[in-house]
Amino acid sequence: MHILTRPILEINLKHLLENFHQLEKLAEHSIPAAVVKDDAYGLDAKVIAKTLYEKANCRNFFVAHGIEGERIRPFVPEANIYVLQGIGEDSIEHFIKNKLIPVISTPQMFAYWKQNRIEGIKPVIHIETGLNRLGFRETELEALSDDDRAEFSVVMSHLACGDEKDHFMNKHQLDNFIRLKNKYFPNLPGSLSASDGVFLGRDFQQDIVRLGAAMYGINTAPYRENQMKNVAYIKAPVLQVEDLPVGEFVGYSATYRANSPRKIAIVSIGYGDGLPRSLSNVGKVFFKSSDGKLFEARIIGRMSMDNVICDVTNVENLQVGDLAYFVDDFYTLDDMGRDAGTISYEILSRVGKNTRYIRKYID
Amino acid sequence: MHILTRPILEINLKHLLENFHQLEKLAEHSIPAAVVKDDAYGLDAKVIAKTLYEKANCRNFFVAHGIEGERIRPFVPEANIYVLQGIGEDSIEHFIKNKLIPVISTPQMFAYWKQNRIEGIKPVIHIETGLNRLGFRETELEALSDDDRAEFSVVMSHLACGDEKDHFMNKHQLDNFIRLKNKYFPNLPGSLSASDGVFLGRDFQQDIVRLGAAMYGINTAPYRENQMKNVAYIKAPVLQVEDLPVGEFVGYSATYRANSPRKIAIVSIGYGDGLPRSLSNVGKVFFKSSDGKLFEARIIGRMSMDNVICDVTNVENLQVGDLAYFVDDFYTLDDMGRDAGTISYEILSRVGKNTRYIRKYID
Repeated sequence: MHILTRPILEINLKHLLENFHQLEKLAEHSIPAAVVKDDAYGLDAKVIAKTLYEKANCRNFFVAHGIEGERIRPFVPEANIYVLQGIGEDSIEHFIKNKLIPVISTPQMFAYWKQNRIEGIKPVIHIETGLNRLGFRETELEALSDDDRAEFSVVMSHLACGDEKDHFMNKHQLDNFIRLKNKYFPNLPGSLSASDGVFLGRDFQQDIVRLGAAMYGINTAPYRENQMKNVAYIKAPVLQVEDLPVGEFVGYSATYRANSPRKIAIVSIGYGDGLPRSLSNVGKVFFKSSDGKLFEARIIGRMSMDNVICDVTNVENLQVGDLAYFVDDFYTLDDMGRDAGTISYEILSRVGKNTRYIRKYID
Repeated sequence: MHILTRPILEINLKHLLENFHQLEKLAEHSIPAAVVKDDAYGLDAKVIAKTLYEKANCRNFFVAHGIEGERIRPFVPEANIYVLQGIGEDSIEHFIKNKLIPVISTPQMFAYWKQNRIEGIKPVIHIETGLNRLGFRETELEALSDDDRAEFSVVMSHLACGDEKDHFMNKHQLDNFIRLKNKYFPNLPGSLSASDGVFLGRDFQQDIVRLGAAMYGINTAPYRENQMKNVAYIKAPVLQVEDLPVGEFVGYSATYRANSPRKIAIVSIGYGDGLPRSLSNVGKVFFKSSDGKLFEARIIGRMSMDNVICDVTNVENLQVGDLAYFVDDFYTLDDMGRDAGTISYEILSRVGKNTRYIRKYID
C-alpha cells in the first residue's frame, strides 16, 4: 500500500506532436500555426511552444495577449508570434520588446497602431464574417485608404460553427471571407480556420491554419470519431475507503443519501484542481485493478475544493493509495465536458493552471 | 479614448483584513486560523498569508497540500501550518523541510506517520462526524491505543451544511463532535468550523476556527445579508462596439440571434480568464458612465476563451476602452455564482490562477 496525497497531471508531448503532424498533413497546402494562448490551454505555453518549435519546426504561433507572447518568446526565438487581442496602451511594451505581431480588429486600434508603429512589424487585420465577435465590419473596411490597407501582412477571420460540418454559417462565412479578402486585400495571405475549420476542407484552410484545440486532443469535429490522440491525463490517489451505511448523507448540503449500503472512496482532487464542480453527483471516475481491469464509478455528493467522493461499491479490491482516473484515453476531456454540461476546452483551460498537481511531461 | 486589451484583477487586502478581524471578533473565544489552501482560493497564498501574518498577527494557517505549505513558509516563519490532505510518500519532503503539521484522516495515513514521524511535530486528527468525507470513523477511533491518541495535538472535523442555519445536520455533527472528542480526546483543543460555522455561534466555534471563504468576501451565511466586504474585483476593457442588425447571430454555434436592432460590445475577458462559461447568454455585466451612473447589460452568445460579447443597447455613451465590470460591490462573486449555476467558491478559485490579468493588490 502506498500513502499518496497529490493529484497528477500528465501531458503527453508525443501525442501533441502526432496531433500537430496529423493536422499539418490535413492542411498540407497551408502554413500551420500553433495556438498557444491561455497558457497553451493551461498546459504551459513555454513547454508547448518550445516542443513545437524544436520538434515540429513550427515557426508561427498565436497567443491572445502580448504578455503571453512575451512569455514564450525565449523559447521560439525566430518565430512569428501573432497576438489575437491586439495591441494597446497596456500591452505595447510587450510588442516592442518581443517583436510581436498584433492582430488589429477595430478602426480605433488601427488608429492607435498608426501612432505607435513598431519597426519591422506588419500587423494582421481581423475581419468580421459572421461570428459577430472581433473584427472590422465591411463599412469599416470601406473607410480604409490604400495606404491603410498596405499596412497589413495577413487577413484573418474566425468561424462560428466550424465544429458542425453542415451548418449554414460555414459557407456563409467562407463566402464573406473570400469576397472581402478579394475586394480589400487580394494579395494578402488569408487565415480563416482554427482546428475545426481544418476538417472542413481545402477552401476553409486558406493560407494559414491556426491549430489549437485539436492539437491538445479535443475533438473539434464531433460529428465523427476523434482522430486526435489524448494529451492530458488526470489522476489522483484514493485517501480513504469506507463503508457507507444506509441513511447516511455525503458531502456539502447533504445532496446524496445512501439508499442501500454503499462503499465510498475519498479521492484527493477537487474543483480547486480545476475539475468542474458540476460533476457533483453525475461525474464518472475510473479505477484499475492490478490485472488491468477497468472499473467505472460515480462521483457522489457535491464536489469539494480538495476532494471528491466516489461510490466504489462495485470496484473490486480497491485500496488506499490506488489511483482514480479522471481523464484518460477511455474517458476524454470531451467525455467529461459532456457530463459536466460544458465543453472540453473550458475544463482543459482550468486544469493545467493549478499548481498542486505533480506535473509530468512525457516526451 | 484609451486602447486597452487586458483584463484587470484587483484584490483588496484592506477588505481582507477587515473581514478577518470581523470573523475573529465573532469567534472571540477561539483561535483564528486562516485557510489559504488552493493558493488562497486563487488570490496568491504568498501575498494573503504574508498580509495576515504581518498585519493581523495570524499565526495559524491551513493549506490542503504540503506543497502549498512549502510555498507560504517563507512568509509566515513562526506560524503553525496545518495540511488538510495530510502526509504521504509524495509530500513528506515538504513537511520535513518546512515543519508542516499534517492532518491525519485515516488509520493508513496514521500508520505511515508512525513510521515517518517528524521531530517536534504533533499531527491533527480528523474525525468524521457526518459529512462522510475524510476522517476517522468511530470504529477506527476505537482501535487507537492510548499511546496512539497521545500522538495528536488537535482534533478536527468539518461541517456539511454550516451555510444553512437550521439544517438538522449542524446539531447532528456538533453532537457527534463533542461526544467523540470527549470520549477519545478530552484534553485536546477542537476545531469544527470553517467560516460558515463561525456564524452558528459559540458551540460551533470550539477552540480553533478555520477562516477561509468569508475572509475572501464570500457570503457563507447566505440566509442573511453578507456581512463581509468584497475582496476580488474583476473588470476588462471594451475592445469594440458595433451595431448588430436584425437577423444576425452572435458567437460560437450561433446561439444568440438579434430579433431587434441591438448594439454589442466585445470585451477582452473570457473563460480563459476563469469566468464560468455557463454565463453564456445569461451573465450580467456592468458599465459606468463618466458621471458614475451604473448600467446593467447582458452577456449574449457563447462565452469564448478570450472574449465575451455583451448587449449594450441600453448603455449610454459607451466607447472603446471603457471598462466592463464583472465582479464588484454591486455584483459580487455570490451573484455571479447564482447566475452561472455554481458557487462563488468555484469562480474565485479559478479566476486568480490566470496570468493574463493586470493584477493589483490594494493595501
